[in-house]
Amino acid sequence: MSTKQITFYTAAWSPHAERVRFALDEAGAKYTVHEFGLEFNKGPKPEWYYQINPLGKIPALTYGGPAVPPDQPSPESAKLFESLPLLEFIAEIYPEANLLPTDPILRTKARTFIQLYQNYFHDLLKDVFFLGKPADPILQAIETLQQALPPTGFAVGQFSIADIAVAPSFMRMMLFLKSELGAYSEEDGQKMREALASEKFVRFRRYIEDLHEWPSIKKNWDEAFQIGLWKNVPAFQRKATAPT
Amino acid sequence: MSTKQITFYTAAWSPHAERVRFALDEAGAKYTVHEFGLEFNKGPKPEWYYQINPLGKIPALTYGGPAVPPDQPSPESAKLFESLPLLEFIAEIYPEANLLPTDPILRTKARTFIQLYQNYFHDLLKDVFFLGKPADPILQAIETLQQALPPTGFAVGQFSIADIAVAPSFMRMMLFLKSELGAYSEEDGQKMREALASEKFVRFRRYIEDLHEWPSIKKNWDEAFQIGLWKNVPAFQRKATAPT
Repeated sequence: MSTKQITFYTAAWSPHAERVRFALDEAGAKYTVHEFGLEFNKGPKPEWYYQINPLGKIPALTYGGPAVPPDQPSPESAKLFESLPLLEFIAEIYPEANLLPTDPILRTKARTFIQLYQNYFHDLLKDVFFLGKPADPILQAIETLQQALPPTGFAVGQFSIADIAVAPSFMRMMLFLKSELGAYSEEDGQKMREALASEKFVRFRRYIEDLHEWPSIKKNWDEAFQIGLWKNVPAFQRKATAPT
Repeated sequence: MSTKQITFYTAAWSPHAERVRFALDEAGAKYTVHEFGLEFNKGPKPEWYYQINPLGKIPALTYGGPAVPPDQPSPESAKLFESLPLLEFIAEIYPEANLLPTDPILRTKARTFIQLYQNYFHDLLKDVFFLGKPADPILQAIETLQQALPPTGFAVGQFSIADIAVAPSFMRMMLFLKSELGAYSEEDGQKMREALASEKFVRFRRYIEDLHEWPSIKKNWDEAFQIGLWKNVPAFQRKATAPT
């Protein structure tokens, strides 16, 4: 169990940042939160934030050094960023949380599942739900990832950072579809809802249910809050016909 | 030191596969190689290969199980794929090779350097050199990565999988530019060569030189072979005016 101070820079809209929150909570970490709003995504960031991440992106952690206000980072803390390396970091400093299996083959399979998600699915959430691009590729990507799942359980059986890496985007996708939120056309919305309710995707649906029920995810996932966050964002509105 | 059998499925044209070769050689691993040619990239793969990677991509490893011909994989071996998880795997089964630092903060920084490369640079090699898209984004990406380098040494000081992850693409880029190979326009070729020869990119050039001199890279990197591989590939020819 790590006893150094951890400050977590995040925003509720960000699936990348939510990965890190799930991992910190799964590990039982004590941490200070600095939360940014939707405005963080537009234009320059507060000047002090570039001391933490020179690229001005969330999520980030400061680790170690004295306890200081989050907007006055200490030169003595390590400044760490990019969500996937942060998941590995949390797994390493909290080994008792078993965020990765101990077997090298299973560890590799967990990382491969993350990489398949990154290669095939990740950019499509933005493409389909924010830019209104066609939905077929996202259904193909879900099929690819479904095939990589074992018959039951999480991505490598036991819960791991593989599940934490994919949960924020998968859960947003399912919520957006259920709530008819997003820039996709009415036709594509219907196509995605029908496909994901069909027999073909029964394993994927079960995986999503398992993610929702996992304690460190369940305690952080607030559907009403997510809907409130997105329902008035212009880029997120239906581009074609309105829902009937 | 791992004593299980390793079979490595690779192709000389693939920067992803070359990462794994560098790592295996850095670790001093003994392994069997199955090499595919350029035709692997077109159309379906040999039927037996889908037993190793259901997605039909290289690189892949089989690990453990009996010694068998590479095209007759044993059901007893682990089938592992995706280059970045394979680098972590090799680092884990050969801890004495120090492919990652032992300090969790430095390990995170190594993984973050890889992630920055993946986010900012990786797709641009294809975009600029194979598809002839504009070169400005690649120069911006190199600037971002240069800023992430320490003043001297490798990505996190000591040599690590961070350097192995980026070397194959960076070295190809420099070779293609030097050899006037690639689908970019004459104007963009000149722009990239001038920029990369300028004072602004002195740290990046030094990094590329250090990569070339590192033993496990040097022994595998064959410029004449790479030029021969690419010079007659149609997609790789100048799309605009011919060089003067």
